[in-house]
Amino acid sequence: MATTTASVSEVCAAAKRASRELATLDTQTKNAALEAIAVALEERIGEILEANALDLEAGRESGLSSALLDRLALDEKRIRAIAGGVRAIVALPDPVGEVVEGFRRPNGLEIRKVRVPLGVIAVVYEARPNVTIDAAALCLKSGNAVVLRGSSSAAHSNAILAAITAEAVSGAGVPDGAVGLVHGGGREELRELATQTAQIDLIIPRGGEGLKAVLVEHATVPVIYAASGNCHVYVDSAADLKQARAIVVNAKVQRPGVCNAAETLLVHRDVAGVLLPGLARELVDAGVELRGDERARELSGSVEMVGANAADWDTEYLALTLAVGVVDSLEQAIDHIAEHGTGHSEAIVTCDRAAARRFQLAVDAACVYVNASTRFTDGGEFGMGAEIGNSTQKLHARGPIGLRELCACKYLVEGDGHVRS
Amino acid sequence: MATTTASVSEVCAAAKRASRELATLDTQTKNAALEAIAVALEERIGEILEANALDLEAGRESGLSSALLDRLALDEKRIRAIAGGVRAIVALPDPVGEVVEGFRRPNGLEIRKVRVPLGVIAVVYEARPNVTIDAAALCLKSGNAVVLRGSSSAAHSNAILAAITAEAVSGAGVPDGAVGLVHGGGREELRELATQTAQIDLIIPRGGEGLKAVLVEHATVPVIYAASGNCHVYVDSAADLKQARAIVVNAKVQRPGVCNAAETLLVHRDVAGVLLPGLARELVDAGVELRGDERARELSGSVEMVGANAADWDTEYLALTLAVGVVDSLEQAIDHIAEHGTGHSEAIVTCDRAAARRFQLAVDAACVYVNASTRFTDGGEFGMGAEIGNSTQKLHARGPIGLRELCACKYLVEGDGHVRS
Repeated sequence: MATTTASVSEVCAAAKRASRELATLDTQTKNAALEAIAVALEERIGEILEANALDLEAGRESGLSSALLDRLALDEKRIRAIAGGVRAIVALPDPVGEVVEGFRRPNGLEIRKVRVPLGVIAVVYEARPNVTIDAAALCLKSGNAVVLRGSSSAAHSNAILAAITAEAVSGAGVPDGAVGLVHGGGREELRELATQTAQIDLIIPRGGEGLKAVLVEHATVPVIYAASGNCHVYVDSAADLKQARAIVVNAKVQRPGVCNAAETLLVHRDVAGVLLPGLARELVDAGVELRGDERARELSGSVEMVGANAADWDTEYLALTLAVGVVDSLEQAIDHIAEHGTGHSEAIVTCDRAAARRFQLAVDAACVYVNASTRFTDGGEFGMGAEIGNSTQKLHARGPIGLRELCACKYLVEGDGHVRS
Repeated sequence: MATTTASVSEVCAAAKRASRELATLDTQTKNAALEAIAVALEERIGEILEANALDLEAGRESGLSSALLDRLALDEKRIRAIAGGVRAIVALPDPVGEVVEGFRRPNGLEIRKVRVPLGVIAVVYEARPNVTIDAAALCLKSGNAVVLRGSSSAAHSNAILAAITAEAVSGAGVPDGAVGLVHGGGREELRELATQTAQIDLIIPRGGEGLKAVLVEHATVPVIYAASGNCHVYVDSAADLKQARAIVVNAKVQRPGVCNAAETLLVHRDVAGVLLPGLARELVDAGVELRGDERARELSGSVEMVGANAADWDTEYLALTLAVGVVDSLEQAIDHIAEHGTGHSEAIVTCDRAAARRFQLAVDAACVYVNASTRFTDGGEFGMGAEIGNSTQKLHARGPIGLRELCACKYLVEGDGHVRS
């Protein structure tokens, strides 16, 4: 059962206890447990919708925005999609036990570096109840216990989803405590969770800058921040302009509300006059508001482009807005990205091998693209399957956080009575 | 020049500026810079010894222990050994640019995950001035800028070593600021350093539990703790007892003051009566104080073994002391290690494949040994070359922290006009 009435420290201690056995579970048992979750979700749609209705009602009463209500709302189709997501994780290879490298030393000692679960992962998230299942399934598959801490606005939905999950996996041979839910959306509980260094190996926050600020200040447990993406597309002087146009439009328009959407377009001055009028027209026709520097506005012909101010270069719009700048050189584009980028996804469009090479070498980001849209930064697109976010930090995991990134490594060393001289 | 009079934030900002160019330096330039350090160290032995004499004098006046004075002291031989260590790092492969994995997606997108420098690494250390050079050399080879913060007791030695390093590498094409030294052994400077999130990518502390406590409380920059090692050797019922004896003696005696030395011996009850008398005698003859549980004392015959108290099982002696316990089973040994181990290095001695397999699966530690001494946990012994410590944490780096562990990864993605549908 999800220990919904237990204290934060009790939930964490139970997860820690469970983690030892979980780490040694075979893949078949874990997959059977995931399948049991999927089945239980489909069988108990009615209960889930009842609980969700309570959250939605409370949300309406407390004046939640329609966007937040939409993220909170479940229906039969969404629940079946969540179950389908769990089955997709069943289909992924088990990362635990993978030999990352292995070799024999001159003295005959045999060393293998293998992937092992991290232990206990806490996932802190807002609104969307589907995260309850996604996070639990990814953690279980990677052999980790999970402590879930959703927001109070989704309390009923999360409670039933966590209870269904805990019951389903318990019947499939997963130890009790493997899926824990911490109740209470308060800062107090969050701080308590973030300081359980003896029990929790990693916290992954999925939320806004406010959540991040609390964790930066208070967390003593390691945290991987899935931070914001101020992504750039740079169109080089040697770009194929047809490709450039398609890539820029895709990176901005295809799904503007996500972290790997482009927020700034940089164009080399040599091609700006040819590229910008048509591209700007296409973007505006797609509903994009353009904010250009002086040269971009001059070169865009009759297309409406408001003046960009200093803040525009640092803004992650997450909307149909695009800052547009003209640069004198590749190096100026690289400098601009170093100054304003958040290290998420950066793209160059060019047919010049040297320019592509230089851009990929010099730009410091999780993903650096040549002649492709930034929108590909995604666990699924990278062939890793489901992900729990995109890391823009450098330590441990950078880019999509999939099953492998939820693991640590250990060295297995075997000798024949070896001693050190 | 090492900016020894600059403020913490100035040193960090200079390192951050340098890190961009450093990240793109080729291996030849980095190796030439390292060779220049080695040459400069050998040429300026006199200056170094003069500065070291000032620290030693101040240390004697302030009543530093002879052990600390010994760690602080340099002589010509030690300086030449430090230079030799730098040349050994020249000989190691450059981790930057290594392709960790690479593949082509069904849509033709080509993805490579490559190793890149972390950026700026701060190394905080105590007493030993050789760390100044070791840390600088490892960071430079891995393309990182380094901010060094030694202890005030080695201030003169560290200042001249950092200045020599900075001058040498500057003449070899490494950007200014790549090697920075922060002065002041105060907690205030440490806290300031530990919160430079915009400039520093990682802090590695090399020091005791006091230093760790300060960082756990105050650091907002990511930290990798090279923490303590309460390492166990478990002698299974199916052990080759001759191997067991050699491994236990080696793990305890060969170098007792280091983190991978064994602190507790666990023996299966079936072999304790045969193994313990001779082994205990050999250990005592080697100067080891034994602290046993009731059964171990009974079975050790005439060998002196004081009674172990509860604290002994959790103590990292770092000295010629060994706790000795008798267990009823492999599982009891695994449970003991789970309760008292620090996740560093754990060993089983057994000829039983199933027992070895179970021990390696169930024990959660950086290095899990079968029929070999725990003393092999070491970058050099693992073939990684020099290391900057041993990580007992799970995130990012576990085990020896060598050149690869001082790196992050980024994804290089190349398409042909790819857009996401």
